[in-house]
Amino acid sequence: MKIVIVGASGTVGSAVTALLAQDHQVIRVGHRQGDALVDMTDSASIAALFDGIGRFDALVVASGNVAFAPFPEMTDEQWQTGLESKLMGQIRLTRAAIPHLNDGGSITLISGILSEEPINWGVSASTINGAIEHFVRAAACELPRGLRINVVSPTVLTESMDKYADFFPGFVPVPAARVAQAYKKSVLGVQSGQVFRVNG
Amino acid sequence: MKIVIVGASGTVGSAVTALLAQDHQVIRVGHRQGDALVDMTDSASIAALFDGIGRFDALVVASGNVAFAPFPEMTDEQWQTGLESKLMGQIRLTRAAIPHLNDGGSITLISGILSEEPINWGVSASTINGAIEHFVRAAACELPRGLRINVVSPTVLTESMDKYADFFPGFVPVPAARVAQAYKKSVLGVQSGQVFRVNG
Repeated sequence: MKIVIVGASGTVGSAVTALLAQDHQVIRVGHRQGDALVDMTDSASIAALFDGIGRFDALVVASGNVAFAPFPEMTDEQWQTGLESKLMGQIRLTRAAIPHLNDGGSITLISGILSEEPINWGVSASTINGAIEHFVRAAACELPRGLRINVVSPTVLTESMDKYADFFPGFVPVPAARVAQAYKKSVLGVQSGQVFRVNG
Repeated sequence: MKIVIVGASGTVGSAVTALLAQDHQVIRVGHRQGDALVDMTDSASIAALFDGIGRFDALVVASGNVAFAPFPEMTDEQWQTGLESKLMGQIRLTRAAIPHLNDGGSITLISGILSEEPINWGVSASTINGAIEHFVRAAACELPRGLRINVVSPTVLTESMDKYADFFPGFVPVPAARVAQAYKKSVLGVQSGQVFRVNG
């Protein structure tokens, strides 16, 4: 299987890459490093990425930014970060991948636990992650040629707890390698329109 | 109670206005008609609206556009319609209302059944409606001074079935007057962070 991984150098992306590269051809894509580069906020950049790769069997995304701030003070510009990057970036990648995916191929996106469990300063993240989960459920109904789409929603990562522990009181972290298994389930399994939650 | 209703001349908005005006002071707000005008996509327009109204007890929103198209062909511009109007329009109204609401006041937004039940051409609507529901759950945790926020998620309206019946096969419609009761529950009740679904 030929698998395109966007965000392959991140904490989740590198764990997914390590797991899937054991048995499959993996194309590592990043914003600044990798086998190919892409800017998720730019449709022309995404079109160039897929034109350069040729046909493939699975798109995996483990990338996307969102801003954190107290809700009453969060600016339109801070909202745009999440809307343009994590939400529309993944929607653009999904839409653009369709004609390049082989029949029966799959798309796996990323959301996050804040869709279900709000934290302080996390209103934009909750909104964007929730939007992605509802996008996946609906898009699954309109994909052609047996294409599948799912989303992985991880809790806070063990690898991130030194930076973010104060924002996630009582949240039990999971290692990125555990999150990678949910991606593997999506890519190699048969389900579509699902949210694979990985909680500690 | 002094209640600001944005979208007061729409099918849902006029039913909410008729119900709440029986016992409360209602300010009818619209894009082109009403006691006051507002453009939900324009923060300056929203600021001017609330500056002109003075303090109030409840903000009710029954307004917001979203585009319908086959997902693989839906353009960024069509996505922006829903993101700018129904999603960010309601988020901007919520953020801007906070300092104008009396302590213990409430905000009630609108989403729609497509968050839970996709229809053909409805991927953007499912995404935007889902985003609004997750926004409300998270924003409820950060609102100051006992302010509450909920969202009403109606199924297709009886009044809209002559236009939209073909898009909603097997959906049982509800009259706008029934949807208005969910708004009343939100405005006069005690709950916060809730999605009030009104299904047939």
